Amino acid sequence: MPELVAQKEASNGAGGSPPSPPELPERNSLAEMVNRRIASRDPWFSLEFFPPRTNNGAINLISRIERMNEGQPLFCDITWHPAGDPGNTQKSTSSTCMAATMVNYCCVETMLHITCGRQTEEEIKTNLKNAKELGIRNLLALRGDPPDGGESWVHQDNGFNYATDLVRLIKQEHGDDFSICVAGYPTGHPECTSYQEDLRHLKSKVDAGADFIITQLFFKASTFLQFVKDCRNIGINCPIIPGVLPIQAYQSLRHIVKLSRLEVPQEIIDTIEPMKDNDEAIRNYGVEQAVQMCRDLLNSGDVYGLHIYTLNREVATIEILKRLGMWKEDPQRTLPFKVTANHMRCKEDVRPIFWRSRPNSYVHRTSNWDEFPNGRWGNSSAASFGDLTDYYLFYLKNRSPKESLLKMWGEDLSSEQDVWDVFYHYITGKPNGLGVKVSSLPWQDDELSAETNLITEKLAAINKRGVLTINSQPNINAAPSTDPKVGWGDPNGYIFQKAYLEFFTSEKNVTVLKNILERYPLVNYHIVNSKGDVDYTNCDMTLPIAVTWGVFPGKEIIQPTVVDPIAFKTWKDEAFALWTETWANLYEPGTNSHNLLNHIHDNYYLVNLVDNEFPKDSCLWEIVEKMIQEGALVSQEDVKMDTETGH
Amino acid sequence: MPELVAQKEASNGAGGSPPSPPELPERNSLAEMVNRRIASRDPWFSLEFFPPRTNNGAINLISRIERMNEGQPLFCDITWHPAGDPGNTQKSTSSTCMAATMVNYCCVETMLHITCGRQTEEEIKTNLKNAKELGIRNLLALRGDPPDGGESWVHQDNGFNYATDLVRLIKQEHGDDFSICVAGYPTGHPECTSYQEDLRHLKSKVDAGADFIITQLFFKASTFLQFVKDCRNIGINCPIIPGVLPIQAYQSLRHIVKLSRLEVPQEIIDTIEPMKDNDEAIRNYGVEQAVQMCRDLLNSGDVYGLHIYTLNREVATIEILKRLGMWKEDPQRTLPFKVTANHMRCKEDVRPIFWRSRPNSYVHRTSNWDEFPNGRWGNSSAASFGDLTDYYLFYLKNRSPKESLLKMWGEDLSSEQDVWDVFYHYITGKPNGLGVKVSSLPWQDDELSAETNLITEKLAAINKRGVLTINSQPNINAAPSTDPKVGWGDPNGYIFQKAYLEFFTSEKNVTVLKNILERYPLVNYHIVNSKGDVDYTNCDMTLPIAVTWGVFPGKEIIQPTVVDPIAFKTWKDEAFALWTETWANLYEPGTNSHNLLNHIHDNYYLVNLVDNEFPKDSCLWEIVEKMIQEGALVSQEDVKMDTETGH
Repeated sequence: MPELVAQKEASNGAGGSPPSPPELPERNSLAEMVNRRIASRDPWFSLEFFPPRTNNGAINLISRIERMNEGQPLFCDITWHPAGDPGNTQKSTSSTCMAATMVNYCCVETMLHITCGRQTEEEIKTNLKNAKELGIRNLLALRGDPPDGGESWVHQDNGFNYATDLVRLIKQEHGDDFSICVAGYPTGHPECTSYQEDLRHLKSKVDAGADFIITQLFFKASTFLQFVKDCRNIGINCPIIPGVLPIQAYQSLRHIVKLSRLEVPQEIIDTIEPMKDNDEAIRNYGVEQAVQMCRDLLNSGDVYGLHIYTLNREVATIEILKRLGMWKEDPQRTLPFKVTANHMRCKEDVRPIFWRSRPNSYVHRTSNWDEFPNGRWGNSSAASFGDLTDYYLFYLKNRSPKESLLKMWGEDLSSEQDVWDVFYHYITGKPNGLGVKVSSLPWQDDELSAETNLITEKLAAINKRGVLTINSQPNINAAPSTDPKVGWGDPNGYIFQKAYLEFFTSEKNVTVLKNILERYPLVNYHIVNSKGDVDYTNCDMTLPIAVTWGVFPGKEIIQPTVVDPIAFKTWKDEAFALWTETWANLYEPGTNSHNLLNHIHDNYYLVNLVDNEFPKDSCLWEIVEKMIQEGALVSQEDVKMDTETGH
Repeated sequence: MPELVAQKEASNGAGGSPPSPPELPERNSLAEMVNRRIASRDPWFSLEFFPPRTNNGAINLISRIERMNEGQPLFCDITWHPAGDPGNTQKSTSSTCMAATMVNYCCVETMLHITCGRQTEEEIKTNLKNAKELGIRNLLALRGDPPDGGESWVHQDNGFNYATDLVRLIKQEHGDDFSICVAGYPTGHPECTSYQEDLRHLKSKVDAGADFIITQLFFKASTFLQFVKDCRNIGINCPIIPGVLPIQAYQSLRHIVKLSRLEVPQEIIDTIEPMKDNDEAIRNYGVEQAVQMCRDLLNSGDVYGLHIYTLNREVATIEILKRLGMWKEDPQRTLPFKVTANHMRCKEDVRPIFWRSRPNSYVHRTSNWDEFPNGRWGNSSAASFGDLTDYYLFYLKNRSPKESLLKMWGEDLSSEQDVWDVFYHYITGKPNGLGVKVSSLPWQDDELSAETNLITEKLAAINKRGVLTINSQPNINAAPSTDPKVGWGDPNGYIFQKAYLEFFTSEKNVTVLKNILERYPLVNYHIVNSKGDVDYTNCDMTLPIAVTWGVFPGKEIIQPTVVDPIAFKTWKDEAFALWTETWANLYEPGTNSHNLLNHIHDNYYLVNLVDNEFPKDSCLWEIVEKMIQEGALVSQEDVKMDTETGH
């Protein structure tokens, strides 16, 4: 049988291998992405920021980067700020911490600037190692400015006098683990003796291993295009990305020009001098000028990417990108949760639903994992979730100042109904008694998701009556994957969900709920309390339940969210702790509000319900309605509620 | 924040572990299953067979065991037949080979008898190691009969004179890898000096590590029940399973009684002597007698399992079990494919759809794998499929003798239409020109599946016109998991399928098909030829497509069948080879039939189509209909078909 024998030779010999473990393509490196986008002539942009000076500045900048990431930059970068302890991995405003937050929590492909000036080789190596451990995979390698604001470089004895030395060190220490970018100077580096000498320096940086070049700012497209031509002539063949500064204010332009020792063309000076006290006029001019210059660049046929120096502002940059047609809004979500940009997590496609409204907490608490669930959640009994350290809590706790939180969540809570009303106002978006919109809750980093809008009225009605929902999703049966509210993934797919409801409620309600649930065998439930001595469930304690999945052309089934009984135990500690840590602690001990919230923490139960009958109308509303009605009939004596605390 | 700190201690320290890889509970050992069924008072049965003498006998017995497995025995066992080279791993009729076939291909939990008599320690060890490697995990440990048909045991110097010695060796060499059963003698072992001494021997076998006991046959329930009582009295606490012999014929009873040196009760002798020449009467009596005795055993409250000595026959055994209400027909499938009983594969829950009608081939070609896909198929580029060796082909090729195959598949095929008609008759179940039912094809081990009945008419219509389907499934949108045709898995689930069609067809058809498919972007396709120089596809070459999946209460999504582009390359070699190896080779070289089938092998293409729009009516029929109609208009000159061979 010649054919069957031929097969034997075609197979890999004796073998022993099954299909390799579930495998998605590795995320491409930034260098590959840049090359690919250029090859496909698909225009893109990147955004540069500098580190903030204060914690509040950091919180604001992070929010801004999250907003600007919605326009789909190919990457964002953060400068190395020598005065801000840039390599510090614990200080929230440092360049390194900012980059780590951007990549892990803002979910943006991030490039960290890094310099070799005024540091020992050991310090540089430590900075590289730290950056890598934090998930940063792209570096802009620079020499750094001369010391003490001086005009010229003082020779260092440690061998790091050029960015080339740094590029070489990165390659030597880390191979291809980092994509490396270097700076190009379209009018020559200010300290260089000649434009030609500077081009040769640039070539040596590329030869040492740099993947692409971003240029210093310039004022005319022709300056950049000539520079590219000159680079190509001496054999620099990697991508060269123009750095574009939108002129945003007269003083800042003067400052930048002074620092970079550039000459502003006379026609620009002539135009802006007359309007130097009119910020709006200058900004409008700056937008106009940048759009025109970018159009010239893009029309040249040599440019497919633009690097924008944002100066940490968003209005002008977004305006320019919108006018160029490069700002992409409403992008399709890849998965129902935000996918972090950390390459370690690039295969992650399953998470417990519990952290859906606290994705940063989830990313933080799983940041020590070596691999991430792909395809299946599996058995999490061996998984160890990290604790919530202060570093993370900095972002968590300080999103809004105490005063705004009190205005949203109540300055004096005197009854449980007061607390229920906070949830009600959050769900409905209606202003509370102080006329303030409740835009977040301790359990929700952000405003309610679009998807939850599908069930807002039902949620509002039960929250007002003491069923305090902290997570929910409607059942969905084969919605198009492009659906604006529940869609995710490639087009032409179908999205499914099982109805899910998670809430805190009183012991009275839980007492009747247990009986009601016996009549709904196709509803899975978990009921726990803060002490952990109650754990009612009808689930297998090791099997996760898929509650969101998608079916796509040409793919295996994707099931990104699960209800996992084991992970729920970790989540419930976090969920209960938020009552006290994030909310009760806003008030002085001994006050009504403080006591009341602690009472709820001690006496309420956390319940989750999954309706497995996803093609039918969800029965969860019926169950909760029965619970509220029957619960109201239970006399206080029937439950052993602690009446010592509270009201 | 005391609570968050408390969490830290509760988690597994610094950690680093994600949820463990997708994990199903380990399959229980047979010992555990026996204990569990007894604990839950859930009656069960097991079936004993002896190895056949000839290849044809082996084929028949395997078919019989497959049929009898439908009644859901807890396990089947096969005796150690010293005259049949029982430890031989290459001889299809040996005890070891039969057990390996049962566990891997009949998908039945299997116990192999094994003896220590007349063998060296090395031989015994080799037998144990071979059994383990073949996937056998249950042994019935015996000393073995005296040599040369003698009546008494001749002492062996190798230390193996009792089954106890063998039990000890198994434990010593393999720990708990095997469940170990030993034999009990309700009336004492024939060679033993006393009943009491024999009980002590039995206790020493259990103390050495046996998990449960199966008894020698007996004729009265009271004999067994007294034996159990006596065992308990001397501290034998493991399960004791009664061995039940249905009396099936006068001569065989005499033979068995002589061998086992048992005494038949006078009342039985008195009853059967008068009917000794009436086989049917004796069989009826035997069924009646066994049913009565088994009822007595089950009613005693001490017995939950029955071990039936089938004597390799099925009628009486099935009759007895049906009358006892223990024969469970139409069991729900766990997965859409038969799950092998090999514990190595107990987590396997994903397979390529290609081998659906040739599951034995798939099991054989993946038998060297160390792990099996669970949850996702992933990327099979590293997977190595084994070739089809002669050992396997023995079962494959000889299921029907050549004469019956020729009657089914045509004694003289003179045109392509003749071949198409064979497919047509297979699909429709209508007798062919010779009045014979085509009950299999080279690509299908068995008759058409119930599921395929859903689309029989459509399949018949296209096969008759040269679209030779070898695999197909209709699209299914949320059928109940208990559906008799497409259901599988736990109750209360929902089953989904994408429509799938796989067929051989002419080059003419393929030429027009390629154009037609451009108008159906949501259909994934692969088109290949036997030489392998054609490989048209619109699929990502590494991504498998889920085509069957199920959604169940309390579980992750299960997706048991995929269309994998890489595995398809292995399958297509097998699929093309079957034209020549299994079909054309039935005819002499040079005959019309032989040439015609070789022509088809050389010139037809293998096509697979997946319609991703599973909630809508499948468009695959429309595509095929267009292909047939447009293909008929293509003139022969437009395609480069080889006209030298064939008709």
